[in-house]
Amino acid sequence: MSEPRTVRLHLSYDGSDYHGWQVQPGQATVQQALQTALALTVGETVTVHGSGRTDAGVHALGQVAHVVLHEARLPCANLVKALNARLPPSIRVLDASDAPAGFHARHHARSKLYRYRIYREPVASPFLHRYVWHYPYPLNETNLMAAAPAFVGRHDFRSFTATPERGAPPLGDTVREVFRSECVRTASELVYEIEGQGFLHHMVRNLVGFLIEIGRGSRRADEIPAVLAARRRAAAGPTAPAAGLYLVAVQY
Amino acid sequence: MSEPRTVRLHLSYDGSDYHGWQVQPGQATVQQALQTALALTVGETVTVHGSGRTDAGVHALGQVAHVVLHEARLPCANLVKALNARLPPSIRVLDASDAPAGFHARHHARSKLYRYRIYREPVASPFLHRYVWHYPYPLNETNLMAAAPAFVGRHDFRSFTATPERGAPPLGDTVREVFRSECVRTASELVYEIEGQGFLHHMVRNLVGFLIEIGRGSRRADEIPAVLAARRRAAAGPTAPAAGLYLVAVQY
Repeated sequence: MSEPRTVRLHLSYDGSDYHGWQVQPGQATVQQALQTALALTVGETVTVHGSGRTDAGVHALGQVAHVVLHEARLPCANLVKALNARLPPSIRVLDASDAPAGFHARHHARSKLYRYRIYREPVASPFLHRYVWHYPYPLNETNLMAAAPAFVGRHDFRSFTATPERGAPPLGDTVREVFRSECVRTASELVYEIEGQGFLHHMVRNLVGFLIEIGRGSRRADEIPAVLAARRRAAAGPTAPAAGLYLVAVQY
Repeated sequence: MSEPRTVRLHLSYDGSDYHGWQVQPGQATVQQALQTALALTVGETVTVHGSGRTDAGVHALGQVAHVVLHEARLPCANLVKALNARLPPSIRVLDASDAPAGFHARHHARSKLYRYRIYREPVASPFLHRYVWHYPYPLNETNLMAAAPAFVGRHDFRSFTATPERGAPPLGDTVREVFRSECVRTASELVYEIEGQGFLHHMVRNLVGFLIEIGRGSRRADEIPAVLAARRRAAAGPTAPAAGLYLVAVQY
């Protein structure tokens, strides 16, 4: 038996057809698809450790994961080709590289970048219905964009994560640091990007939901400190749909 | 009974899940989906006449069609909303407008513009597998791009249409005029565009297949006149896959 080997995988996937990242019995998940393709490729049963979970319908442009292989001596370039030949076309391994022993995709992640796409044309595009939130209704986009940076900083984001019944962490575990939070307008879309040390369950989608409330005029940007201080989900706004959300990159 | 009314529809669709435009018993087609949505919306059975057929898996950014309505007095803006509410998200009515009596989407089309996308990155994108031809193999792209304009002009394109067994027109019906034929390189793609008075079955895909042969070095651009003169399908090259092809616009 050879030395165990840690391989880092750089992944992209269209989350439309998956029940999220994590293995769930009887459901198609990204982690399951990767583990199946790996088992066929390297001939051993392995666990793929992602930098974090993505929910059903959420996409990844740059997810990172690691696996520990005990037998396979396959060069990384061959591993990429062999996995892509076995994976469904909605999941691609962009790159694989040997990592130092002990590298852990989740524990060692220093920051993550998420993007959220809001499509503003009156008629949805047939090519984008899985990839954006189509929101054709009136919005004060200037107010919405001006409000986005208010989430920057170290805050307790409890108001912006799933309710306790849906698996929120205990009180006190909901502090996160956001490094950047901004929204820009492209020809057809509002594109929101947020970079932070880590994110709570549904946090990005709940922040986007609140920004939309600001754009609609039903909430104001200057309420954000009070909404954060409330530490109650009900103090914030609705959850934006999964389809518009992308995990863009993970920094180590 | 009121005056019949001709309505022109501007359509976009993701062709991935359809057996092409034309109604076929037991198959999901774009024309069928439109006719079903129209029947539910206007309460009469109507035929939707497209500017031309698109094959299975071929997309449209700007297909044009017309319908003759005998009863429905619905304003066009409402018709767009009502149809989009009933159509699957992969088909969108972008616009509807009242047309002069006698307007015919196919007979009156003066030119069409098609686009073909060849994705050149080593790894396919999970977001593009339905929307491009992934061709990661070596190509002399300079030669390929330089050859594209050789199709401009009035030519007999019999060598570039389906074989007689598969429904080619009789000899002599295969002359078409191409106004523009060019290929450009974007960051990740070769994008071929062709504009002409009309196109034969599989013609664009067969032209792209021949351009790829030139890029591979197995054929030369200066063979194009002889290939056209041969008027035999076997004289040309393979047919490029449907997924990369888009009907971009129809001019009247």
